[in-house]
Amino acid sequence: MDKKYSSIHYHDYLQLDKILGAQKLRSAEFGTPAHDEMLFIIIHQVYELWFKEITHDLTSVMEMFDKETVDESDIGVAIARINRITEIQKILIDQIRVLETMTSLDFLDFRNYLLPASGFQSYQFRVVEVALGLKKQERIAYTQNVYYKVFTREQQEYLQQLEDGNSFFDLVERWLERMPFLQQDDFSFLPAYKKAVKNMLANEQRAIASAGYISEEEKALRLRMLGDTDTYFESVFNPEKHEERIRKGEAKLSYKASISALLINLYRDYPLLRQPYVLLGKIIELDENFTTWRYRHAQMVLGMLGKKIGTGGSSGYDYLSETAQKHRIFSDLNNIATLLIPRSELPELPEKMKDQLNFHYCVEK
Amino acid sequence: MDKKYSSIHYHDYLQLDKILGAQKLRSAEFGTPAHDEMLFIIIHQVYELWFKEITHDLTSVMEMFDKETVDESDIGVAIARINRITEIQKILIDQIRVLETMTSLDFLDFRNYLLPASGFQSYQFRVVEVALGLKKQERIAYTQNVYYKVFTREQQEYLQQLEDGNSFFDLVERWLERMPFLQQDDFSFLPAYKKAVKNMLANEQRAIASAGYISEEEKALRLRMLGDTDTYFESVFNPEKHEERIRKGEAKLSYKASISALLINLYRDYPLLRQPYVLLGKIIELDENFTTWRYRHAQMVLGMLGKKIGTGGSSGYDYLSETAQKHRIFSDLNNIATLLIPRSELPELPEKMKDQLNFHYCVEK
Amino acid sequence: MDKKYSSIHYHDYLQLDKILGAQKLRSAEFGTPAHDEMLFIIIHQVYELWFKEITHDLTSVMEMFDKETVDESDIGVAIARINRITEIQKILIDQIRVLETMTSLDFLDFRNYLLPASGFQSYQFRVVEVALGLKKQERIAYTQNVYYKVFTREQQEYLQQLEDGNSFFDLVERWLERMPFLQQDDFSFLPAYKKAVKNMLANEQRAIASAGYISEEEKALRLRMLGDTDTYFESVFNPEKHEERIRKGEAKLSYKASISALLINLYRDYPLLRQPYVLLGKIIELDENFTTWRYRHAQMVLGMLGKKIGTGGSSGYDYLSETAQKHRIFSDLNNIATLLIPRSELPELPEKMKDQLNFHYCVEK
Amino acid sequence: MDKKYSSIHYHDYLQLDKILGAQKLRSAEFGTPAHDEMLFIIIHQVYELWFKEITHDLTSVMEMFDKETVDESDIGVAIARINRITEIQKILIDQIRVLETMTSLDFLDFRNYLLPASGFQSYQFRVVEVALGLKKQERIAYTQNVYYKVFTREQQEYLQQLEDGNSFFDLVERWLERMPFLQQDDFSFLPAYKKAVKNMLANEQRAIASAGYISEEEKALRLRMLGDTDTYFESVFNPEKHEERIRKGEAKLSYKASISALLINLYRDYPLLRQPYVLLGKIIELDENFTTWRYRHAQMVLGMLGKKIGTGGSSGYDYLSETAQKHRIFSDLNNIATLLIPRSELPELPEKMKDQLNFHYCVEK
Repeated sequence: MDKKYSSIHYHDYLQLDKILGAQKLRSAEFGTPAHDEMLFIIIHQVYELWFKEITHDLTSVMEMFDKETVDESDIGVAIARINRITEIQKILIDQIRVLETMTSLDFLDFRNYLLPASGFQSYQFRVVEVALGLKKQERIAYTQNVYYKVFTREQQEYLQQLEDGNSFFDLVERWLERMPFLQQDDFSFLPAYKKAVKNMLANEQRAIASAGYISEEEKALRLRMLGDTDTYFESVFNPEKHEERIRKGEAKLSYKASISALLINLYRDYPLLRQPYVLLGKIIELDENFTTWRYRHAQMVLGMLGKKIGTGGSSGYDYLSETAQKHRIFSDLNNIATLLIPRSELPELPEKMKDQLNFHYCVEK
Repeated sequence: MDKKYSSIHYHDYLQLDKILGAQKLRSAEFGTPAHDEMLFIIIHQVYELWFKEITHDLTSVMEMFDKETVDESDIGVAIARINRITEIQKILIDQIRVLETMTSLDFLDFRNYLLPASGFQSYQFRVVEVALGLKKQERIAYTQNVYYKVFTREQQEYLQQLEDGNSFFDLVERWLERMPFLQQDDFSFLPAYKKAVKNMLANEQRAIASAGYISEEEKALRLRMLGDTDTYFESVFNPEKHEERIRKGEAKLSYKASISALLINLYRDYPLLRQPYVLLGKIIELDENFTTWRYRHAQMVLGMLGKKIGTGGSSGYDYLSETAQKHRIFSDLNNIATLLIPRSELPELPEKMKDQLNFHYCVEK
Repeated sequence: MDKKYSSIHYHDYLQLDKILGAQKLRSAEFGTPAHDEMLFIIIHQVYELWFKEITHDLTSVMEMFDKETVDESDIGVAIARINRITEIQKILIDQIRVLETMTSLDFLDFRNYLLPASGFQSYQFRVVEVALGLKKQERIAYTQNVYYKVFTREQQEYLQQLEDGNSFFDLVERWLERMPFLQQDDFSFLPAYKKAVKNMLANEQRAIASAGYISEEEKALRLRMLGDTDTYFESVFNPEKHEERIRKGEAKLSYKASISALLINLYRDYPLLRQPYVLLGKIIELDENFTTWRYRHAQMVLGMLGKKIGTGGSSGYDYLSETAQKHRIFSDLNNIATLLIPRSELPELPEKMKDQLNFHYCVEK
Repeated sequence: MDKKYSSIHYHDYLQLDKILGAQKLRSAEFGTPAHDEMLFIIIHQVYELWFKEITHDLTSVMEMFDKETVDESDIGVAIARINRITEIQKILIDQIRVLETMTSLDFLDFRNYLLPASGFQSYQFRVVEVALGLKKQERIAYTQNVYYKVFTREQQEYLQQLEDGNSFFDLVERWLERMPFLQQDDFSFLPAYKKAVKNMLANEQRAIASAGYISEEEKALRLRMLGDTDTYFESVFNPEKHEERIRKGEAKLSYKASISALLINLYRDYPLLRQPYVLLGKIIELDENFTTWRYRHAQMVLGMLGKKIGTGGSSGYDYLSETAQKHRIFSDLNNIATLLIPRSELPELPEKMKDQLNFHYCVEK
């Protein structure tokens, strides 16, 4: 405590001896120094530093949600930290442009020296994926089988432990399930919403059918659009259908959590639901950004290696493209858009609930 | 000519009466004004303005290439103009973030009034696609059948005429085919390159096989990587294979043009090939950016509509995702990366050709 | 109402005849068509479209704040709309890169035909500036005198009327002044904060003075840093000093509003202050983005024209650089950073106030 | 050599033990761990890694130019490497957004522990500045006096040695001075250019004076614009004036190099001048990007600390703002825009020179 304010120099604080002394070119060691190997090393080190920060922020948010009751004042902080992760992700995506200044011919000057090192061996990235909620069986086939092997026993154990515990997905799901506004006195959200959806569809059908100024072809199209919409609602109206979708791997989020997320989306204009709504939006953005990163990463690998097999033993391009499509965690939150109805059709909440959803200073309490 | 310097006011020069008088909210006309409809109109108008500029630049470049001999001084201008298009594309991609500030619930406030208007009906975007070289039969099934119907007869005719003429793809292909460096006196690029590839593969195989310090498993992997590489070269070594790939739709670029593009990539360090190399890179970037734009566009539609059928009658998300994968024009240029070999393995060019590929002032001429 | 769902085509909905028919090259009219004039026209039209959207969003937010009591549920919407403006601003800034693809030599091909048109004549941009709160006397000298002259009488009147009414700055100031948490029962924020600041400074001074491990030189520096900090607090501790700074033009925001903004910043972790805190942050971002835009705009003009006098009759570079520094509206909000103290030093709020600043459902009410 | 292909794991290749083991929170050591200190450390480490890459690329380019005759095939590589630096700079600028997610209140949680560490102590950044060509006496006053003190003796000596040697500015200046096209047989660029400028001005004056359709006020303005333009040319027409400007610190680039840069800008459409032109453009971009980075950096510091004195002992904001304006190196290249004249007014080059500026294969040689 006495040394609280001991002086420190920028160089020592950042431990720059370590940081700037960690670039050793394999091409220089075993052959002719390849100018671009420096970039290759440095950009990957930068990625790893950012992964460390992402883990730091994500872990802190997970701790906030790993409680019986999430502290309301933590929601704002959680939003700010996930927002930070998304800002970092934008940099992860944009700095692919820097790596793209290295051409495939320049890469060939040192590629042979790197075998079998591969971004696939990034332990920290696996940790982020698992912490978010990616399960082994959800990984694309290739990764399921081998992805553990490239890590040390200690790392493997930690990954397993992380996967066995509560992921961020699990914690968000529970928090949604505990949301108290689905039922109050004799108001029940779900039947009211169902009724609103049915009314809306019936009105639309009538309006379209009776419109004199559009062609039969277009009427049919519009009715088909509506009709298809109807089927979209099926798994909301029917919990068994939802369970079935989960069993088939078409959905992940529990029925109850899904309904809460729907309610938050529909009634987000109430002050008390605003922060939860913003939080869900940030989670979607987090998920989408990793998808975009994988997509851009795949695009970059294609430009660098063509369809050649990557240093990890797979065609980097195919592998990354596939993970971009399949390694999403929170797509259920995204799909809620399908279930929204116009504000004008929203069932009115009971006065008591509206009151609770507003701020008030309760001075008379 | 006399009026050359007549005064003009910013407002009149930009015809702002037209530009700023072209936002009429359908929601205001037929119901309650929806605040976000303004954004929806304006951002699409901005897209259309940029499409006009892209067409303007692309057309000018196509004119430069639509000649027996492309003027060397035009290559620099062509690069600059395609670079401009790529800068515009980055804006097209980034401004999706602006549209994403409109939430699906806000969109529902006016979506019904827009039917059946759809971005699918953007005539200018079709023009760009066709001018670049997208053929009707290469479009994904849905579009093949209906995409003409949404345009006026005049527009349909222009699109057909554009498709029948030389696309940018065709012009670049011809320019590559005319490249003079594939053969000179008794030097022939292709056999020399083949020999180099074979040597390289043989050396690598020997090195791997005799390495005492890596596991048999890893040896096998490395040999497999090499072996697979061998097969990649097949269609370069064998013109019939290349023709077959074209017939199957796996390649588009002619054999001769492909070999020229390969040569440019391999010997780009020679001053005379630098500009062609930069040009090919810019064309790839142009192609990739449209792919990224479609991808991000699909992502945005998913967030807005879920998997609902879009105003155009298809699931916007599925349609856009599929075009992102299939509507590429210049992927052959991208795939050349597969064929590159390290500079140290490159066949030496004959002195005379090297001389021609360098700048010199030919003062004695 | 009957025609509610009448069909509309994308082309007509966006009024593309107007939008795409508004590019007339002066170089083509009076001389040789200059390829890049198209870009020049289009990018300025795009800017004007975005200014229209910014005005649309800003006006809607101002209406929300132009009330005795701001509706709590509007705060979330206001944040979302200002966030939209900031996303648009990022595009305004980034698309300068597109204009930078036009070189000065290319600009010279048509620059003479544009006189005296100038971005300075953008009426919409003036409207945004005035609506935000820029007063005539705060404009840099050059603009004060002439900026009205370039507009029509009608436009001039509207600008004057806008300036005479409540600007966004005025509305935010009032909203802050009405904030109820500065005083409650026998708790008063300001004295408590003063005491905390004094304690903090005293402790720091003692710690520094007694530290045995740092040089005298560094001690002096640290004490100077602290001492200077002391002076920063002067105008918070003393309302007369604050008034004096306003008179001198060093501050704009009223004393009471400033103290509220300080409180919001310090206690933002309480749920009820989170949204106000986020809102203030977004307002700062809005202000900063215009500054960055002016700065980048100046940089671009320098590259295009050097230090030549612009079409508006001033050196565009000097004018824009100066406005970038002086035309800020909300720098007082930014300067609050100077007044913050560590969370550990924050005065504890009374229980009753803490209770009010938390969410609760008041079910017993 | 035998071990050429020894295996390496991603983790070891990137020396992640060092990289990821270099984050030690001072707040955790001396008090309560502050969550955001991790970000603070990591982002600065990322900056330092990028500075290392920038130095690596810049040094390699300087070596290419540190020769009697610059190898033509190196120009393309130099452009590509400077382009890489500019892509890195964009990331340096954009990732300020990440640091801005840390609020001033969060910074206060650990700021006291960092004293007197400061970004001002970044040795690598000084190296980049000095290598580019910033001289001690050109630094703003504050830095001149103290900037050496914060480094070790070894570092100070290296900086001095670097400053005494040829900077990138010096090397580019020499390369420009050697440019061979200013004089050939009886053609001399400078008199021809002077004549063209005079003709152009005379024609413009006549046209303006005789125009019947613009007001006298506007005529006067236009003539003033022209007249002012005339003065801009003074230091090109008169080498003594140029020397005087250098003595006054208004210009840095030698007269001869300036004239060459002007010629390159005017005749860049000739193939042989294209690459030099692109190179000069990239150098300007490099310079501008550092300016933008300093500007954004200052803006960020203002938001974080207000006008408080920074850890380095100066008001970070004031210091950074001032360097943003004054620490430019290549502004002379930027100012050439002032001297350009329309293509239609360009003096025709002699046939022989035109011939040399075009590519040709000299087959008859």
